[in-house]
Formats: sequence, C-alpha cells, structure tokens
Amino acid sequence: MRDYSPLDFTRVKLTGAFWSERLDTVLTRTIPSQYEQLVAHNMIEALKVEQPAPPLTIPRNKSGFTTQIFWDSDIGKWIEAASYALSHERDEDIEAKIDEIVELLGAAQLEDGYLNCWYIGREVNNRWTNLRDNHELYNAGHLLEGAIAYFQATGRRKLLDIMERYMDHIAEVFGPGPNQKKGYPGHQEIELALIRLYHLTGDTKRLDLATYFINQRGTQPHYFDLEANARGSDPASFGQGTYEYNQSHKPVREQDKVVGHAVRAMYMYAAMADLAAELDDEDLKKACEVLWADATGKRMYVTGGFGPSASNEGFTRDYDLPNDTAYAETCATVAMIFWAQRMLNLDLDGRYGDILELGLFNGALSGLSHEGEHYFYENKLQSDGSHKRWAWHPCPCCTMNVSRLIASVGGYFYSSSADAIAVHLYGGSEASFEMAGGPVLLKETSSYPWSGDIRFDVSVERPVNFALKLRVPAWAHGASASVNGSPVDVGAHIQSGYLNIEREWRDGDTVALTLPMTPQRIYANPQVGADIGKVALRRGPLVYALEQADNGQDVLNLRLRRDGDIEANEGTNLPPGTIVLKGEGLAADATAWGEALYAEHPPQMKPATLTAIPYFYWNNRQPGAMTVWMQEES
Amino acid sequence: MRDYSPLDFTRVKLTGAFWSERLDTVLTRTIPSQYEQLVAHNMIEALKVEQPAPPLTIPRNKSGFTTQIFWDSDIGKWIEAASYALSHERDEDIEAKIDEIVELLGAAQLEDGYLNCWYIGREVNNRWTNLRDNHELYNAGHLLEGAIAYFQATGRRKLLDIMERYMDHIAEVFGPGPNQKKGYPGHQEIELALIRLYHLTGDTKRLDLATYFINQRGTQPHYFDLEANARGSDPASFGQGTYEYNQSHKPVREQDKVVGHAVRAMYMYAAMADLAAELDDEDLKKACEVLWADATGKRMYVTGGFGPSASNEGFTRDYDLPNDTAYAETCATVAMIFWAQRMLNLDLDGRYGDILELGLFNGALSGLSHEGEHYFYENKLQSDGSHKRWAWHPCPCCTMNVSRLIASVGGYFYSSSADAIAVHLYGGSEASFEMAGGPVLLKETSSYPWSGDIRFDVSVERPVNFALKLRVPAWAHGASASVNGSPVDVGAHIQSGYLNIEREWRDGDTVALTLPMTPQRIYANPQVGADIGKVALRRGPLVYALEQADNGQDVLNLRLRRDGDIEANEGTNLPPGTIVLKGEGLAADATAWGEALYAEHPPQMKPATLTAIPYFYWNNRQPGAMTVWMQEES
Repeated sequence: MRDYSPLDFTRVKLTGAFWSERLDTVLTRTIPSQYEQLVAHNMIEALKVEQPAPPLTIPRNKSGFTTQIFWDSDIGKWIEAASYALSHERDEDIEAKIDEIVELLGAAQLEDGYLNCWYIGREVNNRWTNLRDNHELYNAGHLLEGAIAYFQATGRRKLLDIMERYMDHIAEVFGPGPNQKKGYPGHQEIELALIRLYHLTGDTKRLDLATYFINQRGTQPHYFDLEANARGSDPASFGQGTYEYNQSHKPVREQDKVVGHAVRAMYMYAAMADLAAELDDEDLKKACEVLWADATGKRMYVTGGFGPSASNEGFTRDYDLPNDTAYAETCATVAMIFWAQRMLNLDLDGRYGDILELGLFNGALSGLSHEGEHYFYENKLQSDGSHKRWAWHPCPCCTMNVSRLIASVGGYFYSSSADAIAVHLYGGSEASFEMAGGPVLLKETSSYPWSGDIRFDVSVERPVNFALKLRVPAWAHGASASVNGSPVDVGAHIQSGYLNIEREWRDGDTVALTLPMTPQRIYANPQVGADIGKVALRRGPLVYALEQADNGQDVLNLRLRRDGDIEANEGTNLPPGTIVLKGEGLAADATAWGEALYAEHPPQMKPATLTAIPYFYWNNRQPGAMTVWMQEES
Repeated sequence: MRDYSPLDFTRVKLTGAFWSERLDTVLTRTIPSQYEQLVAHNMIEALKVEQPAPPLTIPRNKSGFTTQIFWDSDIGKWIEAASYALSHERDEDIEAKIDEIVELLGAAQLEDGYLNCWYIGREVNNRWTNLRDNHELYNAGHLLEGAIAYFQATGRRKLLDIMERYMDHIAEVFGPGPNQKKGYPGHQEIELALIRLYHLTGDTKRLDLATYFINQRGTQPHYFDLEANARGSDPASFGQGTYEYNQSHKPVREQDKVVGHAVRAMYMYAAMADLAAELDDEDLKKACEVLWADATGKRMYVTGGFGPSASNEGFTRDYDLPNDTAYAETCATVAMIFWAQRMLNLDLDGRYGDILELGLFNGALSGLSHEGEHYFYENKLQSDGSHKRWAWHPCPCCTMNVSRLIASVGGYFYSSSADAIAVHLYGGSEASFEMAGGPVLLKETSSYPWSGDIRFDVSVERPVNFALKLRVPAWAHGASASVNGSPVDVGAHIQSGYLNIEREWRDGDTVALTLPMTPQRIYANPQVGADIGKVALRRGPLVYALEQADNGQDVLNLRLRRDGDIEANEGTNLPPGTIVLKGEGLAADATAWGEALYAEHPPQMKPATLTAIPYFYWNNRQPGAMTVWMQEES
C-alpha cells in the first residue's frame, strides 16, 4: 500500500532564501540556545538519578502532578533536533554535549533496561503503574527518536544501544502474553519512534510492538481502568473525565471523530498512517481518511492550527474555532505535518500536501520567533496584545518540536517511488534521487513563498524515465507549466492535485511552473461562529494577519471592503523580501464617537488602509494586538 | 451631604405583575429551597464547631484553600434574605430554622466574642492571621447584616446581641491603638454592615470602625505585607499577584481606576459612598464619582454586568468586555446596585438611577431562574449553549445575593428627603412616606417594564408641599407627563435626569408619566473590540438577547438590518406579558455553503427574522446558544 517514501532531508539542500534563513537561524541560534535553557532549567541535572532526588524545579499542580515528569522527552527531542543540525554540519561541541547526556542516560539505565529518569530517581517502585498520566512510553519514544537521529548523523551508537535495550525491556513488559501488561501509552508517540527504529534496523519486533500499542488501544476491559484499580485509585477520578482525551475511548479503527488532546491525537493518527502502509491495512487507512476529513473539515484553523481549547489542550465540538482563546498548540500542527506526510505515502493527494504546507508556513512556523530564541506554545488567531512569545516554558515541548521540524524541513519537500518523483513543497533546493532508471538531481530555483515562479533543472547521467508530479495547490488558480519551454496543459494532466509530467528526462531538461500568487479572500463555513461576518487574507501558502505595528492598536476595529483591490508589495520594517498586503477599508472613528460606552447610533466610519503581514511573522516587532480574521464591509 | 435616604422596602407594597411575580417566587421557592441546599451541603452542620472538625466537604485547591471558609457569610446572607421574607409575612417554620442557626452561632462564639465557625472549629490559633485571603471580616459582615435584618423583621435580638459582642471584639482587635492590629478586610463587606448597625443603634463606635477600615486600606507599611511576614510567608507569594486584586494597592481616596475583584470593589465603593454621606467627606465623594465614571464608562457590560475575567473574578483593562467569556458575576451587579443606591443619597442624578435599573433588570435578574431554584454565577452575554444554570455552587455567594436583593427590591424604588420624594424605579406599588408636611401615600399603577404608561395617585390626609422627582431614563426619548390631566413641560423641568414636580399635593391628585418604549438599537464604543460591527437591542430598561429556542442553533449567524423595523409584541412560550422583539435580517445559508470549512467566496445570505427575548429570561426553556450582541447588516 505504500506508494511513496519521503526523500530524507539529508538529500535535500535548501538554497532558497526563505528556508535557508529559517534553517540557519535554527541551527545557529535555536538549537544552541535550547541547550542553554535545558542547563539553566536543571533539565540536564535532572538526568542524574541519585537518591534522594533533588527538589522539584517545576511545582506540582493540585492533583500532585508536575510537568517535570516529561523532561526525558524534551532531552530526546533536543538530541533529535541537534542531530539534524549535525547532519547539516558536524560540530564537536554539540556532539560532546550530547555524549555527556548519553553518559548520564547510560548511568541511569537499570539492569533490566528500564530508563526513565523521573521514576528511577524518585519512585522506581511505581514504574509502569500509571501509563494514563505519567508519560513513560512517551518519554521513551522521544529518547528513541533522538537516539536514531544521533546515530544517523554521527554513526555513534551508544545511545541507540541504550534505547534498543530499553525497547527490549518494553517489549517484555507489554504484549499479549499471560505475564505481560496489556497497556499502551497515555500519550501516544512511541509508536512513531518504533516504526522509525524498524526502518533503521529492519527488526520486526519493533514494528510488532508499535502495532500492539495501536491495536490494543481502547479495547475492553479498558487498560486504564485496570491500571487505576491496581493503584487503588477510582478510574472515574481521571482528571480529564473521558478517555476521549487520550483517544482510548474505543479501538482506533472504530474512531471517526477527532477528539481529545490534539497532540496525542495527531501523533496517533500519524502512527496509524505509518502502520497502514507497513501492514497494508485497509481498515487502518480508511480510519485515517475519515479522521483526516473530520480534522480538516470541521476543526482546523485557517492557519493549520488544531485544538481550540486550553482545558484539554485539544478538541471540542464541530466548528468550534474561537480566535482569541485559540490554543492551537505548535506541537499539534507539527504532529499534523507528520501525519500529512504519512498520508502522502498512502495516496499522492493534494489535499494532504496542501494542508501540510498550510500548517508548515503558518501554524507551525509561527511557533518560533524570527530571531530564533522565543516561542509560542499557543498560536492564537487574535490577540489584544497580551499574548507574547516566551523564552522558555514549564512544559517546553513546543520549542524542540519546531526546531526538529525546521532542522529537517527539506525532508518534507519530496517523495518518490521507483519511477515517480513527487514535489510537495516549493523553494530553492537541490535534491538527489535514486530512481529505478538511474540517479536524478533536481535543482529548483524560486523565491517561493514570495513568488510562485518556479523552475526545475534536471540533471541525469543518462536519460531516465520517471513521472515528475508537481503539487498544484488548490489556491493556485490558473497555474501554468512548461517543459523545455513548451506549454503543458495543466488541467489535462492534474491527478488529485498533482501535475503529472511523465517522460524520458534528459540532462538539462527544464520545467517551469507558475503558481499565481493573487491575494485571496477566505471565508469560513457559516457554522464557524467565531468567523461570521469576517474575512481572512491569503497569498500563496501564507495566511496574513493585521498587526498593531502596522495598523494601530484597534486592529479589530478595521473593516476590509469586500470588492476592493488587495495590493501585494515588499514590506518595510520586515525581513527582506517579505510581501505585505494592503487593502482599502473602513475604521470606526473612535474620536468622533467620544466618551460614551454605549450609544444609540453606530460609530462613524472613516477610510482606512489595512496592512497585513504573514501570520507566522507576527509578534516579532513590538508586542501588540493582532487578528487573522477581519471585519468585512460588504 | 446626605440629601436623600432610601424608603425602606417594608414601606413599599409591590402590586405590579412583574415584581410581584419575582418577589413571590423568591419568597415561596428560592428562600426555602436555599435552606434545603444549606442543609444538603452540610453548611448548617458546619456551624457545629466540635473538635476535631469533620472532613471538608469542599476540597482544597492547590494552594490549600477551600471556599468552605466563606460559609458563615452564606449563612448570614440566607438569614438576611429569609428575614426580608418574614418582613413580608411572618412564618414560624422559617423563624424556627433561623433560631436553630442562632443557637449554633451562640454556642460557637468564644468568650471574647470571636465568632468564625471555620477558625473556631479547625484552627482557632490562626484567627486574624490572614485577613488577605481568609475572609473573617467578610463573614462577620454578612452575619451582622443577617442579624440586623432578623431583628428588624421579628424584634428578636439574640443574634444581634451575639453580633454586637463580636463587633465589640473586632473593635478591640483592630484600630489605631498601640496594641491593635492595623488591618482591614481582604474582602470588603463588613464596612457596609457596620454602617447599617450604626443606623440601627446610633452607636458611633460602629461608624468609627467602618471608617477605620476604609481609611486604613492601602496605607503603608502595607498590612498584608506585615501580616504575611508575621505568618512566615513571603508577601510576594500572594496568588493574585497584586493588591489591586483587593483594592488595597493605594489609599481609597487616591484610587481612580476600577481594578481587581469586582465584588470586593463594588462593596467597597458602596461603603465609601455611605461614609461620604455620613462623614460629609467631600474627598471620599469625589473618589466615588471618579470610580463610578470609570466603572460605567469603560468596563460595564451593556447588561449592567461587571468584571470580564474569570481569573481574578474581576477587572482587566479599559474596554475589555468579551461576551462569551464574560464573568460578570451576579454578586458584582448586586453590589453595584448597592453602590448606585448610595450614590443617589449623595446626588439625585439619573446616571445612578439609570444604571441601578439597568443592572437590576438585566445583569442581576438573569442570575435567578424563572422557577426560582437555579442560578447563574457568571452572566455571559454570549453562549454556545454550554453555559447553563446550576442548582448550587461550591461558592454559593450569588444565590443569596440575588434572593436578598429581590426580597427587598421595593427598597430601591424610592428615596426621600424632608420635602422631596424621588422615584427611581417604576412598577405597580403603594408606598408610604412621612414628609415634613405630613404623611403621603403614593400609589403607582403600571405594567412596567412591559409598558411605559405610569400613573401615580396621591393620598394625603391634608395638603402637603413636596417635590415629586420622577426619574426619566436616558433611553426614554419624548417622555411626557401630566398632573391632574394638565401637561407638564418635561424638558423644562428635568434636573439631572429627574422630572421635578413641586407643588402642594392634595388628596386625589394624579400624575401620569409616559416613558416611550420604542425598541432601540445600541452600539458600543469602537474601543470595545468584542462588539465591533455588532448591535444590541433594548426596550425600556430591558436588554434583549437572541436565544436558540426562538432562532435556531446558529444565533451568531444572524444579522439584523440596520434600517429595518423592530416590532414589539407579547411573546408565546414565555411568561404572560413578556414582550419579544422581532426584526428582519439575514442569515448565512449553511446549506448553500456546503461542506467546505473555508472557501474563497462569502456565504450566501438569506432573509431571516430575528426574535429577541429579554436577556434576564434566557436559559429558562431548553438550554441553547444565546447572544446579546448581534451582527449588523448595514
């Protein structure tokens, strides 16, 4: 069932200004500064598991819980992100830091392979007693992903060996056997890591364990009930109230609504899509498709954000997409990108590629500041100015999710089969493929996302037959293309959102693709109460926002004329090349209104020019108000 | 400086359908059912202070705090409300219940007069060590108000004696003397109660103590700092972060912004207005006026609700009035009504009367269900259907605030001086005054608030010279009046919002007043981001709302035409006489839109009739969505 596999980011050199800049920032500023934060917040120190454990640095909440229990995962994600950096350029200093962490992890690991620094340091006798809340398998998954990435970047396998021992232990503890626990993670993640390990080593035990976790989830008797009873705790006292929170309310193949904690959900769906391909499991694929339609059709922000509610960090009811209280955690969009990439392995369909790109350029990229050392956890679509980027967080999951994504972003550009190359994302790059017919080097020249003029130069040692499949985003009305200067009939060659150009490619062949970047108005389904009467602006893959820095404090007070022109030009006071949109509209005249709080007459309106910047860039100048959705004057 | 005094509710008989019904519901259903809730929630049992104390029935939060510590206040407020009921009609059963409570309070009281059932039962050695958080003085205030009301209703003075002993004790503990604590309440309330006690007994010690609490507040060194240090606690660890929370950030006469916890603020301002009158304190009056202008000019919901934020149960920044997340606690509006009434003692100015009426008919009345046994704590202006009335609450402060308000609502109708009668509220009623010139009986006939046709019949034993001052609400454009059928030039006789009719009144004189009840559109200051592009409807004193029961689920999806007629007619499926408003508008056509979550075209609009009901009545039929502010089609 697996039609395509992603081209690894190590085979994609990013040459375009947009992604080069982001990548460079992450490699030179974000990843090093994250290490400093780990040190400053005692998160490296916490790997030392001597007894008695030092005092908590993150206080417990009222139920006795502390996010410090997740710290192994943050260490794992930083190793993963740093290893991607090493894949771009080796660095002795970073490697020494990772090796030091590996030593600590090796020293902490128990004889039987168990490795969780919280439990070993504080309550080792309680290990594996609360999968529902305490993230042991989640932590293990992230450490394993870090180990794999570090091995791939450097060839050093000590951490990989440690983690393979841990996985052996986990496979002994969990499974269908009579003396095994019938459990699975309260926070899904390890499934993805195990499949990566399987891809690395070919060891089917890893695939089997991932499959077990997915298949066992939500079956009866419910493991989290059994486990709570075994702890002497009432299962009904679960703080989140429902097993929908962790998507264990029913077996995964029966799930047809996207519910609960958004990051848990998206990681699980990504793993389901992976397994659907590995196991050729049509039911699992079907479940993924139904869930994808539900996620993107009823509960996705226009920025590709997911999960409106802070209270469960996740999903609520259909069409509930409030803007000022949006949670839309960075991690949820990153996890959706993982899922979308895996759906593209199953079906080369533009609806996956379009939303992957939407999330990447908007809901995910917004999570990192331009200078690379500040973050959003919540990616709101409207702010009164009080929502600001922070330098660190008691639960720093998003920081390393955005750095590992950007550090490996080239890996989302392409995928291939034996005789086809699919291009999902655009931007100046050089990518090398090993096709059945021989090696292919694809060099793309473009200043995407600022311009939609894209050119590919094909280099081959000898002619190679393959289909070049170029995603034509749904927003790109009137896209045109040519091969060696001869027009291609785009309409006739579009298949599920990808322009299919099959031929024998020769060295020096060129393909031109033009994706018209006309500014567009977007409206929400009228069932989205929060966006009624409002309009958003998009240009190419970028969603735009009105920010106080360009429009004054009362950005909510601006109305865009429905029929006016929207001009696109390079902005000032923004990174070079950044395109801003300007449209004519109206603003309520606060001066003419006077002092009254309420009155019987509507405010007088005065002409106003609305200036919108790319959403991902907001909150990088002075702090201030912002809105993606603006009032419309029709 | 005191120009007017309110006419006690015992001198006002409510005969109009609207308030008779509400009063009857409160007397026959609300107050008895509240007693049952007190019993069911162990709140009577908790007055028994034997050691060791029984387990908590309200769990502690993460900082170790439990709202059970406020329970004395709820008992006090129930006694107060029940005593108002007894003033309408004596009831042996209710009196027996109160006497039983009084016995328990008497048994609990310590030899030195101290009386706080939480502290006596659990941690008597900690008494008076945390005024900032633990509400001892607040509880004392509410118990004192209950004692005064019970004495006034029945003449029984045991509880009053208990509370006078407690006040003697408090006056020994707190004050300027060398061995006295320089403290004041963390939650203001006792100031109001002490002034009532002073009015009852004439004992100036009570007035002095209230004055001390108000004058001492916010002075340096800050008492809550000293107190925290004495407990061995870091003053900076105050959970609320700022002494603005309890309005002790600076001396009260220097306060010019309404900040912090809304109920605390409003109780304090009410006490300040009381003291300004008692002490003839021009600075205090001036501070009240500045704070009133700030409260009503920058932070009042159109319903007369106050305090937008759940996190501090209070105020945020200027013009921050979100609708769906509005806190707008019932208690805050009730407390504002107390404040407004006291401002009317200082200056007979319609801006106080107008907002008193606005809060009463909207933000306060909404807090009680039609059947009288369910409540809102938060009076939101918009709901997706998830906000519902509850039968009880871990912090039931609002339940008894609304019952004591309605049980004594006649007391807000009138005030008088030696030679003037001021009418603040309208509704069928009979009120008796002792004027300098002799007794006056004023009989009002009207079906207000449904109709604005009001008639007064004057009964006097002998002709009496006095000014009759009738509030002409700011919304009543084109109000007209006549005396004995002869028109009065309203415009020429309006003084600060009150129509002044001075004459020698004779028995049988009649006054007709017509307040035109044309439905009106209201718009918010454009600085209120939440209401931009929206309109609200008002008719007379009532603010209206669109509710799902009349308009279908997507009430937010409806747009009212700016220029269309608004029809006012008696509704169906509502209590008799209720006027509903209907206007023509548009609705986005969700069916025509189809499945897409986002699209490049705006929704098609279709004609729709919008049906609005009085806001206070919402959530009394099936649960559902609601909005006060509706989109406008201009």
